Amino acid sequence: MPVGTAATVKAMTPEAVAQTGAQIVLANAYHLMLRPTAERIDRLGGLHKFMNWAGPILTDSGGFQAMSLAQLREISVAGIRFKSHLDGSMHDLTPERCMEVQTLLGVDIAMALDECVRYPASEEEVRTSLRYTLDWGERSRAAFVSTPGRGLFGIVQGETRRDLREACANQLTQMGFDGYAIGGLAVGEGQKIMFEVVGYTAPLLPEDRPRYLMGVGKPGDIVGAVARGVDMFDCVLPTRSGRTGQAFTRRGTVNIRNARHAEDARALDADCTCPVCRGHSRAYLHHLSKAEEILGAMLLTWHNIHYYQELMADLRGAIAAQSLAGFSAKFDEDMAGGDITAL
Amino acid sequence: MPVGTAATVKAMTPEAVAQTGAQIVLANAYHLMLRPTAERIDRLGGLHKFMNWAGPILTDSGGFQAMSLAQLREISVAGIRFKSHLDGSMHDLTPERCMEVQTLLGVDIAMALDECVRYPASEEEVRTSLRYTLDWGERSRAAFVSTPGRGLFGIVQGETRRDLREACANQLTQMGFDGYAIGGLAVGEGQKIMFEVVGYTAPLLPEDRPRYLMGVGKPGDIVGAVARGVDMFDCVLPTRSGRTGQAFTRRGTVNIRNARHAEDARALDADCTCPVCRGHSRAYLHHLSKAEEILGAMLLTWHNIHYYQELMADLRGAIAAQSLAGFSAKFDEDMAGGDITAL
Repeated sequence: MPVGTAATVKAMTPEAVAQTGAQIVLANAYHLMLRPTAERIDRLGGLHKFMNWAGPILTDSGGFQAMSLAQLREISVAGIRFKSHLDGSMHDLTPERCMEVQTLLGVDIAMALDECVRYPASEEEVRTSLRYTLDWGERSRAAFVSTPGRGLFGIVQGETRRDLREACANQLTQMGFDGYAIGGLAVGEGQKIMFEVVGYTAPLLPEDRPRYLMGVGKPGDIVGAVARGVDMFDCVLPTRSGRTGQAFTRRGTVNIRNARHAEDARALDADCTCPVCRGHSRAYLHHLSKAEEILGAMLLTWHNIHYYQELMADLRGAIAAQSLAGFSAKFDEDMAGGDITAL
Repeated sequence: MPVGTAATVKAMTPEAVAQTGAQIVLANAYHLMLRPTAERIDRLGGLHKFMNWAGPILTDSGGFQAMSLAQLREISVAGIRFKSHLDGSMHDLTPERCMEVQTLLGVDIAMALDECVRYPASEEEVRTSLRYTLDWGERSRAAFVSTPGRGLFGIVQGETRRDLREACANQLTQMGFDGYAIGGLAVGEGQKIMFEVVGYTAPLLPEDRPRYLMGVGKPGDIVGAVARGVDMFDCVLPTRSGRTGQAFTRRGTVNIRNARHAEDARALDADCTCPVCRGHSRAYLHHLSKAEEILGAMLLTWHNIHYYQELMADLRGAIAAQSLAGFSAKFDEDMAGGDITAL
């Protein structure tokens, strides 16, 4: 899912997002409840109409941002009380309010309110945090008004502790959600530990419900997580990197600001079918990026989202053809043996 | 002509520029000779290929920017010696170098090197400046290698002094250019004086050659100048305003950041056929602009260029229908009586 935090996938028109093959986008309940407010978006006909995106939308609960972005916050079993980073106003993000916000936005997939513990944390901290996540999960479930075509996902927390991940996954599946997310990863634990946690958590989640690994990740993270049973991802990497001159390709990451690209008439990726690779040279992208032109951010973002969408399509194809292991091996080989050195 | 200073119409893909109806874009010889350099663009196949724009390109000579942007500059009959605002390197912009740069870029319309005197200036200053403009015009003419489909325009200067404008226009037409520009206006003299100067200068220029009013202007400036015989314009207003939350409409200028638009579900301009007005509300554009999202700049720029292109198309239609006076009167009436108050 391309990330559209503030009701826009940064530097992309909705038409361009759709052209990359993206079927669903993510928006952020925290940002939207503060500006322009969920109530205003509701009065304007909902988030789909507001941002002119006809496909599905998933919103994260806002809990993570309330903890990481807000200036002051106080957490209790009631919920998260925080001070807006925009205007200093005070807000209570309870599970009930969280469901109300996402319902006002009119999204297709809402996320339960959860607590994401800082990494690394003590066992006591993780246990306390999990009590919030489970209590809030149950209250989110109760407050969410199910309608056809709209679903609520629960979020498995438990840091890197297998017993706590298992306990959380079991309790959430007993509550019963339309899908399940694995949260609290890609927060500094490294790929090896992340794969371990995903490896033992994903199989605990119902096979007939989507599994969503939140905030992940680099292309290699995604390939490894899919191999471990994950279906859905969101990550700011393709969009954020696009605004800082980094491009993802089949042969590794390109830093387009590097002087070696200044006179390179080739496309970013000769095998890529996106409009950026078909219409523009590395030399031009280098020039735009060095000159800090908006078009540089636009084109690199477009290419990066296209790359991510194509990667997911290729993974779906490999699963359908029962050749995922072969795909993963070739992916690693291409990344390692490419002619583009890393950053 | 939408302005594409650094080989990009800011915040627009070339495809989007073409969709607005634009047939030709302007780029800036000063900026491009410094970065990425005219020689590099030549090695990469020329400016059309570099920026992926198939239509005609006009470059201004760079003289205006060398005088206004460079950190140090020294002007003599030889040309302009200046220090780059990017890296402090020294450059000589002579008429011969100016023609070489534009030839390396491979543009369709090159501009002669001229000197644009500061406004207001003394008669002596204007006379001295005009000597440079005429000498450089003649040397530009001599250095320019004509090829089929490529042309060179001379530039009439002379500040707001009728005798000097006339002398300049007469000497340039005797030299013989493929088109003629009126330069040195919209620099603080006001619309009334600008119309006066255009009114007596344009008729001095050959009827069978394009007349180009440089750096103009607001919609009303363009309508008035067309009525006085001008064919071509360039202006940063539609693009620059798009990045600061201003939109042009048939009923005046809209400052989309104004709180009155926060919950307005209407299009910027109900009569506009651009994709922005068909797909997005003022409320959404207000939100994007307040949140400083790149998409806000992209959408407002698109709308503004579309508006300018439609205005020019309407003017061409009115000329063909011999109803320009009626069109101008209606334009003024709409602007004055609209329901959108000015900034």
